[in-house]
Amino acid sequence: MRISELAEVTGTTVTTLKFYLRRGLLQPGRSVTRTQAEYGEEHVERVRLVRALSEVGGLDLAAVGRVVEAIEGPGLGRLDVMATAQHALSGARDRAGQGPSRGDERTRAWIAARGWQVDPRDVALDRLAAAWNACEGAGLGLDEDRLDAYADAVEQIATIDVASVPPEPASAVRQVVLGTVLVEPVLAALRLLAQQHISITERP
Amino acid sequence: MRISELAEVTGTTVTTLKFYLRRGLLQPGRSVTRTQAEYGEEHVERVRLVRALSEVGGLDLAAVGRVVEAIEGPGLGRLDVMATAQHALSGARDRAGQGPSRGDERTRAWIAARGWQVDPRDVALDRLAAAWNACEGAGLGLDEDRLDAYADAVEQIATIDVASVPPEPASAVRQVVLGTVLVEPVLAALRLLAQQHISITERP
Repeated sequence: MRISELAEVTGTTVTTLKFYLRRGLLQPGRSVTRTQAEYGEEHVERVRLVRALSEVGGLDLAAVGRVVEAIEGPGLGRLDVMATAQHALSGARDRAGQGPSRGDERTRAWIAARGWQVDPRDVALDRLAAAWNACEGAGLGLDEDRLDAYADAVEQIATIDVASVPPEPASAVRQVVLGTVLVEPVLAALRLLAQQHISITERP
Repeated sequence: MRISELAEVTGTTVTTLKFYLRRGLLQPGRSVTRTQAEYGEEHVERVRLVRALSEVGGLDLAAVGRVVEAIEGPGLGRLDVMATAQHALSGARDRAGQGPSRGDERTRAWIAARGWQVDPRDVALDRLAAAWNACEGAGLGLDEDRLDAYADAVEQIATIDVASVPPEPASAVRQVVLGTVLVEPVLAALRLLAQQHISITERP
């Protein structure tokens, strides 16, 4: 199909598609004349992916680019899948595995007490520390015990995440990246609905 | 303190504070001369709140404004707390309680099968439908059973959320709004760390 048809099928515009092409988010079509290219089903899929990541997942275009790169990248060992996926999302690929431990003292102590085996240089530790401090700054009373209670529930979520990763490394990266980004809004919406259900049914 | 000191204490700039004042995100100081105002501890708290909501919570300034308004608003009945908080976050206050049911057919069927009592016009239903469809479009294989498994875990999270709401309605709205926004990045960071821990410890 031509670029105008690709735009129509995916519900976007030629201008947007040309922008995706320039940014490397959409792979080039197959040239048929000097000014025309032919696009196929793989382009439709890619456009839907880019839009889902940016519109549903809330990723900026740089992060979308890293995700697309990670998905397209060469085959990886099974053990690298989670790390590659997470680094594509956090943009910390270059810094991972180097430098001092991340997160603040309280966060590291909590992780150690919980017995979680994680890379001490993972940027998610910084994010957890920043988010926890923001809760404290706002007077939310989020102490170690409540964090542990949340972590119990989140471990169940992560177990479902990990169990749904396919065995082949190439599709595994794709699954992990997309699962992390695209399932996040599902979980957020479920949380709002569950809060509502519980506050209604537990009403005194 | 003067506005320059307020900027220093909160680690921001006078330009930013003046912007917050114009947008109504920061309450005015007490006028001492025609050109000077005095700021106190409540202003320090507010600046930290606005920054936490926008930087940690990822809210845009319009949403931050609605949250601040909801927190400052008149006392509410206990039953309205969750609805007010959620509407402040979703920006759907004006439309809530009107119009047709939200979410698509599959989402409504799943909610009904699960037995969740939620407002059929809640915008969270639209969000869930959109997020679920995006997962499907990306080939993530998120079916009803996996959504139920996620929902089991999310119900635990929501139970902790609801249990931590204080009994007085005024502080309850504040707690619910902040809890929903500021705990979200905590949960997201925990999910990344838990995925890592589980994929390491379950390594074959």
